[in-house]
Amino acid sequence: MIFHFLTGLSAAKLLHEKGLNVLVLEARDRVGGRTCTAYGEGFGYCDVGGSYVGPTQNRLLRLSKELGIETYKMYDKGQYIFMTGGRPTEYKPLPTFWNPFKTMDLLHMLRLIDEYGSKIPADAPWDCPHAEEWDRMTMKEFWEKHCWTQTAITFGDLLVESFVTAKSHQVSMLWFLWYIKQCGGFDRCCSTVNGGQERKFLGGSQQISLRMQELLGDRVRLNQPVVRVEQGKDGVTLYTGTQDRYQARYVVFSIPVPLQLKVTFDPPLPTPRYQLIQRVPMGSVLKIMMYYERPFWREKGYSGLIIIEEDDAPVCFTYDDTKPDGSYPCIIGFCPADKAVHFSQLPEEERKMLICKSYAKAFGTDEALKPTAYVEKNWMQEEYSGGCYTIYFPPGVLTNFGKVLREPFGRIYFAGTETATHWSGYMEGAVQAGERAARETLNAMGRISADQIWQEEPESKDCPALPFETTFLQRNAPSVGGFLKFLGLTPIVAGVGAFALKGKL
Amino acid sequence: MIFHFLTGLSAAKLLHEKGLNVLVLEARDRVGGRTCTAYGEGFGYCDVGGSYVGPTQNRLLRLSKELGIETYKMYDKGQYIFMTGGRPTEYKPLPTFWNPFKTMDLLHMLRLIDEYGSKIPADAPWDCPHAEEWDRMTMKEFWEKHCWTQTAITFGDLLVESFVTAKSHQVSMLWFLWYIKQCGGFDRCCSTVNGGQERKFLGGSQQISLRMQELLGDRVRLNQPVVRVEQGKDGVTLYTGTQDRYQARYVVFSIPVPLQLKVTFDPPLPTPRYQLIQRVPMGSVLKIMMYYERPFWREKGYSGLIIIEEDDAPVCFTYDDTKPDGSYPCIIGFCPADKAVHFSQLPEEERKMLICKSYAKAFGTDEALKPTAYVEKNWMQEEYSGGCYTIYFPPGVLTNFGKVLREPFGRIYFAGTETATHWSGYMEGAVQAGERAARETLNAMGRISADQIWQEEPESKDCPALPFETTFLQRNAPSVGGFLKFLGLTPIVAGVGAFALKGKL
Repeated sequence: MIFHFLTGLSAAKLLHEKGLNVLVLEARDRVGGRTCTAYGEGFGYCDVGGSYVGPTQNRLLRLSKELGIETYKMYDKGQYIFMTGGRPTEYKPLPTFWNPFKTMDLLHMLRLIDEYGSKIPADAPWDCPHAEEWDRMTMKEFWEKHCWTQTAITFGDLLVESFVTAKSHQVSMLWFLWYIKQCGGFDRCCSTVNGGQERKFLGGSQQISLRMQELLGDRVRLNQPVVRVEQGKDGVTLYTGTQDRYQARYVVFSIPVPLQLKVTFDPPLPTPRYQLIQRVPMGSVLKIMMYYERPFWREKGYSGLIIIEEDDAPVCFTYDDTKPDGSYPCIIGFCPADKAVHFSQLPEEERKMLICKSYAKAFGTDEALKPTAYVEKNWMQEEYSGGCYTIYFPPGVLTNFGKVLREPFGRIYFAGTETATHWSGYMEGAVQAGERAARETLNAMGRISADQIWQEEPESKDCPALPFETTFLQRNAPSVGGFLKFLGLTPIVAGVGAFALKGKL
Repeated sequence: MIFHFLTGLSAAKLLHEKGLNVLVLEARDRVGGRTCTAYGEGFGYCDVGGSYVGPTQNRLLRLSKELGIETYKMYDKGQYIFMTGGRPTEYKPLPTFWNPFKTMDLLHMLRLIDEYGSKIPADAPWDCPHAEEWDRMTMKEFWEKHCWTQTAITFGDLLVESFVTAKSHQVSMLWFLWYIKQCGGFDRCCSTVNGGQERKFLGGSQQISLRMQELLGDRVRLNQPVVRVEQGKDGVTLYTGTQDRYQARYVVFSIPVPLQLKVTFDPPLPTPRYQLIQRVPMGSVLKIMMYYERPFWREKGYSGLIIIEEDDAPVCFTYDDTKPDGSYPCIIGFCPADKAVHFSQLPEEERKMLICKSYAKAFGTDEALKPTAYVEKNWMQEEYSGGCYTIYFPPGVLTNFGKVLREPFGRIYFAGTETATHWSGYMEGAVQAGERAARETLNAMGRISADQIWQEEPESKDCPALPFETTFLQRNAPSVGGFLKFLGLTPIVAGVGAFALKGKL
């Protein structure tokens, strides 16, 4: 009755608990979708896919607790590092520069992300008052319009790559600003303390899917890629690549949006949906775990978080990924977007060496050149993922097609983290989407009312969300343009001065 | 050995003539791909898909002549019409306005398209000196950067929609300018006389495929969508949705790029190709044939070509589509891009009425409200097309992935009009691509040398290409900015004046 991935399993679990007869058809030879835990000598276990959990991700926290999976906090002592222009700069929590214009510009830009986000409805970004205008622009245009310094633009480009594994010029401004907003804003989205990367699951995140698989028993069938879906008056017939056939009254469909092209529908998909699924590609990313003898960065006062802005460095940002008991010291690195495609074409040894070299430069020690183990995962090579972390919307697609993302098609309801309205793109979004779609089928069966489909989730007591404290400067740093005006320069002179300044910093 | 569409058939024909054992596997129940001829009372026959042919499309002209299919010239007497601001304006060959700034701006903008295009290599746009910068921009940014008047911007937006069935803000500037360039420039691409829309095929364009199908006999198998491709050391095994299995030494693969996601590959597609096929959607378009008792527009001195800029008019541009003997007077209209998606959701009667109303306004007569027959084709609803006319490249995709478009994968060679270097997106491009891919397999078999793969085509004697005559104004009209400077205004005053002017016209 149901198929695919974390979102499919969470839907199936909910319906199974209501006493319904469910079946999960999984295309791969394992459950977990974009969460996957690898095991091996030299590193014990590690999440090569989705891994983090934090405050406000209350559905995922509830589900994992129920399944008996513990969380632990990420290591966050010590300084962060920003590698730019070939040199490491220490910072925490936000980079500052000797040139006050750069700092002012960066703070103003980050504030703008949330200011714009506050105007975008999380559940209907197309209803934002400026939706069409913002959807016609890329994030590259946003940075160009609002940033005065190349430093801020470069930092902005890195943010987009890190958050959504695509480049600034590839993504709609409306979509990216919505994406940050529906995570709860910039700080909630990017923070290791009090944010989306605060915790990990002890034993690995794939356990969540594995335990649900145990609960559902032989109701989960592996190696069953659905290739054809026929809808009749009374139900749906599903055909798999292995030539098996299944009958269901309702289907929760949680294949990643672009990979829905793999399925033939009879009757065919409605025009807007068939156009949508061609227009929202999966992001591109390699995840790289580098293991060391000792957590030497901790000893030097670094947290392990580095932002790397260097053309020949595959990895753009890193975290400490050491186990909570201190075993298997590790730096996890992300190689996103165009870099993922480019560097995935190199031989593994060469890629590994380039990464070690850039870590050595950032941490200022040759210890980084001597890893004890290396694990990498190319999500672009997984046929049933197509990429990671999530889909992105190029300009013009969200306003024109966004509405059909979770619009049912007959007896088919759409789940998948991409259809979520809170932490879409994350595991939390997958759970929200799976449970919502499950309740949509319950509603269709007349078991619950329409207003019970969407449900608020109470806050986790183990992992409560705290407000973010901001500095006076963060709240009040003017834009560079505003500052020049404030200095008493007339708008025209400020304009000319700004023209001279812009792009030179 | 070979499969799908006009490009597949032209490849198969070439190889068959060399004495090879070929097989064409076609997913649909007919050949022709995006060319399709409909038959019916009230209109005889009409091409609901690709239809036009003109000078420099020498491969298509040669092939169709060999197959015994005649061409005829489009009706081009009388004035063109530009509907804007609710009023029709007559023009030929280019719109002029009472406000000289608007005319100047439009002419300058059109000239820029070819000036930029001259720097883009048709066979390798990624090698253009400004490739990365231009690929990061959308055509919307191009118009905003170079146009001074809203009139020129709006006209530019309409051009993009009409040429590539996507919006200015959806397409890469590098890609769109390449697209026009590889057709031979703006005039060659858009003209009805001496350009891409000069002629049509008597009896319909699908005949080309149908005659090739006759020649190949039972070597063409219909209703055989390939769903799985396994490559071994000695050959390729193809599995179809009907559970048939075929063995081949080489495969020419001509499924539209995004629909290649429908096939499972073992070994899997290389990373860059699997990312590419998620990133290049098919354009969106409805084609609409409206038949009348009499060609009343001809009687009023109009050619039947209208450009329509009106939000509530589904059709953006039209041609006369009357048969060459004067029978079945017809206006063919194109409803592209977002409009196609939106208006395809209305009931047919409502759509038809809106179209008739806008024709009535343009031609200034209620005769347009009384059609005798109506034929429409929604290409977005065809599972094995996914849309029409061709794929488009959103920003950032061409430089990063363009190179792999026609890069072979083992024993699989890629054809399809999207892989062409001349008239890509057109039937001509399909023939070039099919024949090139066929010769790639001949080269792999050691039958021809590598330098014989790409072949120049001699010019058609029946349909030679003439140079385009340009007026003094077309060649020399300055940009609005250039003109203001010429008036002796200093750059700064011109800048301020321009600021006041810009966006107001």
